[in-house]
Parts: sequence; C-alpha cells; structure tokens
Amino acid sequence: MAEAIIHFGIIGCAEIARKVSRAIILAPNAHLAAVASRSVEKAAAFAKDNNFPSDAKIHGSYESLLDDPEIDVVYVPLPTSLHVKWACLAAQKKKHILLEKPVALNVGEFDKIVEVCEANGVQLMDGTMWMHNPRTEKMKELLTDKERFGEIRTIHSCFTFAGDENFLKNDIRVKPDLDGLGALGDAGWYATRAILWATDYELPNTVIALHGPIFNEAGVILACGASLHWDDGKIATIHCSFLTHLTMYITAIGTNGTLHLDDFVIPFNEKESSFTASSKSWFNELVTGWTHSPSQHIVASEIPQEACMVREFARLVASIKVNGAKPDQSWPIRSRKTQLLLDAVKESIEKGFEPVKIVN
Amino acid sequence: MAEAIIHFGIIGCAEIARKVSRAIILAPNAHLAAVASRSVEKAAAFAKDNNFPSDAKIHGSYESLLDDPEIDVVYVPLPTSLHVKWACLAAQKKKHILLEKPVALNVGEFDKIVEVCEANGVQLMDGTMWMHNPRTEKMKELLTDKERFGEIRTIHSCFTFAGDENFLKNDIRVKPDLDGLGALGDAGWYATRAILWATDYELPNTVIALHGPIFNEAGVILACGASLHWDDGKIATIHCSFLTHLTMYITAIGTNGTLHLDDFVIPFNEKESSFTASSKSWFNELVTGWTHSPSQHIVASEIPQEACMVREFARLVASIKVNGAKPDQSWPIRSRKTQLLLDAVKESIEKGFEPVKIVN
Repeated sequence: MAEAIIHFGIIGCAEIARKVSRAIILAPNAHLAAVASRSVEKAAAFAKDNNFPSDAKIHGSYESLLDDPEIDVVYVPLPTSLHVKWACLAAQKKKHILLEKPVALNVGEFDKIVEVCEANGVQLMDGTMWMHNPRTEKMKELLTDKERFGEIRTIHSCFTFAGDENFLKNDIRVKPDLDGLGALGDAGWYATRAILWATDYELPNTVIALHGPIFNEAGVILACGASLHWDDGKIATIHCSFLTHLTMYITAIGTNGTLHLDDFVIPFNEKESSFTASSKSWFNELVTGWTHSPSQHIVASEIPQEACMVREFARLVASIKVNGAKPDQSWPIRSRKTQLLLDAVKESIEKGFEPVKIVN
Repeated sequence: MAEAIIHFGIIGCAEIARKVSRAIILAPNAHLAAVASRSVEKAAAFAKDNNFPSDAKIHGSYESLLDDPEIDVVYVPLPTSLHVKWACLAAQKKKHILLEKPVALNVGEFDKIVEVCEANGVQLMDGTMWMHNPRTEKMKELLTDKERFGEIRTIHSCFTFAGDENFLKNDIRVKPDLDGLGALGDAGWYATRAILWATDYELPNTVIALHGPIFNEAGVILACGASLHWDDGKIATIHCSFLTHLTMYITAIGTNGTLHLDDFVIPFNEKESSFTASSKSWFNELVTGWTHSPSQHIVASEIPQEACMVREFARLVASIKVNGAKPDQSWPIRSRKTQLLLDAVKESIEKGFEPVKIVN
C-alpha cells in the first residue's frame, strides 16, 4: 500500500511557520495544502515567499481553513494566549493538531485542549523539533545503557540567547498578553523538556526556582533558573534567558557515563549533528591525564529535524486515518509534563523561591 | 643572573604527593630536595618510587624536614585537619608553603595560617594546579574581551567522579576527622574556584545550597550543589559529587560569547589541552542551523600544569629570597575566597538551604 499523504494547513503567518512550511514540503508523507491569515493578501504573500506548492489554498481567516475538508492537520504557530481557542476549534473540526510550544499559558489551559482532542479522536503533538532528530534517539540509546551510562543522577540544561533591542521590545515572547511565560515558556520549555527526556519523563517530586530571575517592565520573565529534585536523589538544574549569548546544552551524568552536547535545540548543521559521550572515564596512574576521555558521535539526518517531526506526525495521523488507530497519547503526556514543570517554576518564583511539590 | 633554584621538601607521602614530586622534578627552577614521613623507611620508599634525585634527603619526621635549612618550600599534602598545625609550624620555620586544597576546614582556620605566613614573610599558595595551565590564561583572555565575550552573566561548574567502594569507605576525603568537607572540599573546591576565577574573584553577595545533598553515615558530604548570586544579577551554579561518573566542566556565558570546556581540573592530555569558544553566534535565516558555531582552541603546555604551578611558586619564592620582594598576597586571597564560599555552602545546607550572605 502506498503511504498516505497527509495534508497540512497553517493558521497564522508567524516567523516560525516559515521553517515549518519548509519542513512540511520536505517531509515525504506530508503535503503543504493551505495557509490562513487574517487577510488573504498576507496569506498569499506568505505562501509565495515560502515556496508553497501551486495548488495550496489561501484562506483569509483561520475559520475558513478549519472548515476546509481537505485539511488533515492544522499547525498552530499562534501566540500562546490563543492556543486554547484555536486548538479547541481545530479539534472540534476533527483536525489533528501540531501545536507550537509552550503549548499553553498553564496546564489547566492545556488540559482543556487535551480534553477536546480526546473527545474528537485527533492527534496532538507539540512542536519540539529536536525530539525527532535521529541524534536524539542515538543519545537515548546511551542514556538507557546500564553498562555504558549507568543510572542517571544529575542533569544540567541551559538555553539562552541574547535578544536584540527590537526583540526585547516587540517580540510576542516578551508580551504578557501573548506569551506570558516569556523566556521560561520559550527557551525554558526546551531546557525543561531536555530534563524530562533524559529521565524518561519521570516527574520530579519538587521544583525550586533559583533566586534572581529577571523580569521586564511588564513582569514577563526574561531569565530564570530552577532546580528539580526526584525521590531517588536525582537532581537537575535548568537555566533560560533572553539576555545572554546563544548557548544551548545538556550535560547528563550517570553513575558510569556522561553525555554532553552544545546544540540540542537547533543543531549547528541540519545534515549531521553530534554529541559527546564518555564512559567509565578515569585518570591515568599519576592523575596527569584521562583514560577513556569523551568521544564525539556524529549522526546524519536524512531530512532536517523539523521535517522528521512533520514526518512522524503525518505517520501517526495516517495510522489513525487509514488504519483506524487511536491517537498516540504519549505526545500530549510529554507536553503536559513539560507545562506542569514550567508552571511549577513560575509558582516557585511567585512564592519567593519556595519548593513546589509536583502533583501529576 | 642565573635563575635561583628553589629547594622543595614534602611532608607526608600522600598519593597526590607523587604527582607533585614529578612536577617539582620537571619545573626548571625547582629542586626536589627532601621528603619526610613519620618513618624513615616510608619516606625512603617514597623517594625511590618517585624518582627523587640521589641527593634528596630522607626525613623520619615532619619536624626534622622543617628544621632543614636547605629547604625553601614545604609542600603540604596532609589531610585538611592537619593543615593549621603544619602550615603554621612551617611558616614559623620561615618555609614558604604550597598547601593542598581545601586549604582548611573553615576560613577561621585558614586565617590563622595566613596570619602566621604574613608574620614570617613567607609565600602561601594552594595546590590548585589548573590555575597555572597556559590554557587558563588563554581562556581568561576570552572572558575579559568585551567584544568577543561581553559581560559575564551565568556560569555553571561541575566536578564529579565515581569513587569506588574502597574510596567511599577508606579515603581521607570521606572521613569527618580528616577531610571533613568531603566532596565539597575536594571536587567542590575546584568548581567553586572556577566560578571565582571566571568572575575575577568578585565574591557573590549570596550563596544558597541546592536541596538534596547526599551524606555518608558519618555525616560527610558526598554530593551537593549550590547557586551563587551577585548584586549585578550574575548567577552561578556549582555541583560536586563522589557518586557519579567523572565529569568536570565550566560553561561561562556572557552577553556576547560562551566558553566551555570538559576537563578544566585535569586536562585530558597534559601536553596540549583545549576549550571551546563561541562569539556572537546566531541562527541562519530560517533558524535551521547556526552561524558562528563554537570553535575549538588548542593550547600547548611546555610542561604539565602542575609543573607550571611549581615553577610559578618557585619564581615567587626566588623573588622574595633573591630580590627581597614581598609575598604575593593575591594567592592566599584567592584561597580564602574559595574557602569562604565552601563554608557558605556548608552553612546553607546546615540551615536548611537558607540563603547565606557573604561577608569578606
């Protein structure tokens, strides 16, 4: 049987939608079928600028795209404050939903989205692209190798970038009414997801914000950090910022091994990326150097990680559409846990850096 | 004028003294002149096993070495609990002192050592070898480059290793009466020094231990972490452990650049070592890759970093001995600040993770 081609529509001409448009074009089982904006002109210009296929439809309203029966999937790159409304409407129209991160302003909002998706039998997945890079799977092989890596004990994850004056003044990510979680919802989403990914999505027992978060005048977080604590003694720290140089790393330390990479969110190069692993490292006899120092592992990616994401999403949707499979709940569960931890960091900040217990 | 050759004596045949013996032999301005142990046999065996020159003296007591008029410098690798006694005695005998880390069990003890050293006009320096690696100076050039690195904002430093059963049962570093600061005084010393080094030894205003330190049955710290906070919003975290895989890194993030290295305490290779630097990194137009991704900088070291340390110490001592210079106080000041922060981490743990204000 030929693989089903899944039709994607995009509501909103956000900057990130340009990258995802290309990803939909590159994914072998996806068709970029439509774009909607609040004006036909804007949507048409977006389609033209982003190499949409000639048969792609141009919609002058989001509702119009949602009513288009040829669309299987709606990609939602809208500001976070609009996610509940548009994701729920899309689900009610039986559209599967690829939802930008952060998925919501808080977990309560996200639960509404999940509820409507479940009621309508549609697949929900967030737009965390690096999850789908083949490198991520290779790194997971290391982390789950009891011999090479052992038990994971400590994880540090950090994503920062220096927003320019225009970003810090005008970007939706610094506006309380659009992306109210600021750096925590954006860069912090990735750092938090990295921790959950590394721990097989085992929620920590406690989250404690680090002192010294930085806010803009409107009260939106521009930089913050937190420590996460598990019952078994595992500990993780995250740090996110819009105010320092572009840096994105994970260091995961187990009893037998260490994993490190410096470009986990967006690889330096989309065609091949790498990570560093060490296992059972020790010192030479006089402790003047290492035995088993870290080695670099290079992983090729046939298509960019965002196209891998689209391909995986289209595969799940095809499975539902063609084979009557049920939506894969592991993706909204991952999204929800990430959101739950962001909420806890925010709550801990608001409570003067008190520990916040995590209740799933 | 020919460079003065400074005569070193070692009191105590600790494991670390083997590495430092070799360093003294390798340093061009140092002579390995004597070793003392509590028994002549043990000292003689140590000298033989560690290629001491044939004219090196063997002392059957520490006192005897301290009384030896040919000795300029005493290297003290004894357990931390013995530092005050032997460093003070050595200083009173006008010996310059190279003191293993942690320098003391607390800053009060260290202040006694400093006082006696000052009263006797002797140079004091701690044995933090990596400070003297030529790589460290190269990295500092980056950190102080306002254009390439900008203002430092965030630093993470981590040093962990997995002690084996024997280590966790018998090593002096897990014994409350010998090295009572445990992992904090050992691995944590380096991580803390890295933070101070990166911030030009500007003390933070507040230190807060992270929840979840791990202790052995005797109450000695086996793993812990802390966050450090400066008035200007800089933030740092440290993590140290005897319970996880060998990992040692610094990530320092400025407004314009990032520095990272994975072997800051003991380089993978003693002859050349590297670090990774990035500056003004950003994404390509579609945010599918990086422009200005990190680059590796390799720095050769003519002699091992511990020999660089001995050479620098001997140079300072020669300057005092030959030219009548005053001891360089910047070294004990660095030691004291490091100790002060270790004390604060310990105090914060003891006070239930309360913030501890740093008073110099």
